Amino acid sequence: MNSYTRRSNHLPKILSTRTVAKSGIFQIEAVDLCFSNGEKRTFERSVCRSLRSVMAIPLLDKDTVLLIREYSVGTDRYELALPKGVMELGENPLEAANREMQEEVGYGAKRLTCLKEVTAIPGYLSGSMYCVLAEELYPSTLIGDEPEPMEVVPYSLKELSQLVMLNEVTEARTIAALYLARDYLAGQLIPRL
Amino acid sequence: MNSYTRRSNHLPKILSTRTVAKSGIFQIEAVDLCFSNGEKRTFERSVCRSLRSVMAIPLLDKDTVLLIREYSVGTDRYELALPKGVMELGENPLEAANREMQEEVGYGAKRLTCLKEVTAIPGYLSGSMYCVLAEELYPSTLIGDEPEPMEVVPYSLKELSQLVMLNEVTEARTIAALYLARDYLAGQLIPRL
Repeated sequence: MNSYTRRSNHLPKILSTRTVAKSGIFQIEAVDLCFSNGEKRTFERSVCRSLRSVMAIPLLDKDTVLLIREYSVGTDRYELALPKGVMELGENPLEAANREMQEEVGYGAKRLTCLKEVTAIPGYLSGSMYCVLAEELYPSTLIGDEPEPMEVVPYSLKELSQLVMLNEVTEARTIAALYLARDYLAGQLIPRL
Repeated sequence: MNSYTRRSNHLPKILSTRTVAKSGIFQIEAVDLCFSNGEKRTFERSVCRSLRSVMAIPLLDKDTVLLIREYSVGTDRYELALPKGVMELGENPLEAANREMQEEVGYGAKRLTCLKEVTAIPGYLSGSMYCVLAEELYPSTLIGDEPEPMEVVPYSLKELSQLVMLNEVTEARTIAALYLARDYLAGQLIPRL
């Protein structure tokens, strides 16, 4: 039994949860916990509607990734990031990634590979995001719910170290997904999904 | 003038913001926006207390990074991630990273380098996190507010492609910071901060 197994057998006990605030898309819960050492705490977490989402890494050719420039209200600026969105009812991660790509970058993909399921702030937020590599692209457009057309920006994966240092590239999930894709394409990473 | 400059000059106009929900640590705002094409939308964002936070990448030696195994209430499981926390009043990112390391992994660092400022979900959350590489470690402990002792887990950066695929490693900021550190140590990445 390794240390992870030991710890997992001693997850804190959730004594109670209650909704303490709610808006259109956010729901905040207070969670009363008792840790295995007897320590009690009340933590808050956000359990918003987007429990499961996807991010696509669209490869136009072996070395060219397609990013989008999109306004982000959280930071009140344009961010250069990978296309992403919430999974719709009945979709699997590959189908959702293929739909989001068609809505945001104007391509579908014949080959989709789920590389990894990641989280954003697991200490405060529920939910996760599947990172899906999209290859063998073909032009195809679906109408999404974006307030303005996405600006699609091609970038060379060979210059990833420069890309991730751009001021308009800040999203950790995008940075992580790009590195995972590069490692996967170099044969260094084996997806487990 | 490149396309980024063009877009930045046409940021959506924020018509009004109002708090629509509030809890102990979360504050949810509704933001009325008018995009440059005249399209109007109301988006929600969370502007929680942790506007600025830090993540340390503690290097015990040239190849060994120290992670912590910590309970995350958002996902209700233990996550293997880099030490992190909110910056305290008057601290700069390097000082905050050095304090968090002493609280969570039991080391201080003589050499601290800010690699990049990242965001978690810029479309919904305000705030950002500085990724700080910590080298030349020395044993030093500060008492933090953790409910149970952190379990410190050393890992070889040479095996990063295996590390990031572990089921207990999901946090995108941790994955991004580890890759940034590897690129920086290989001389491929130039910090701009």
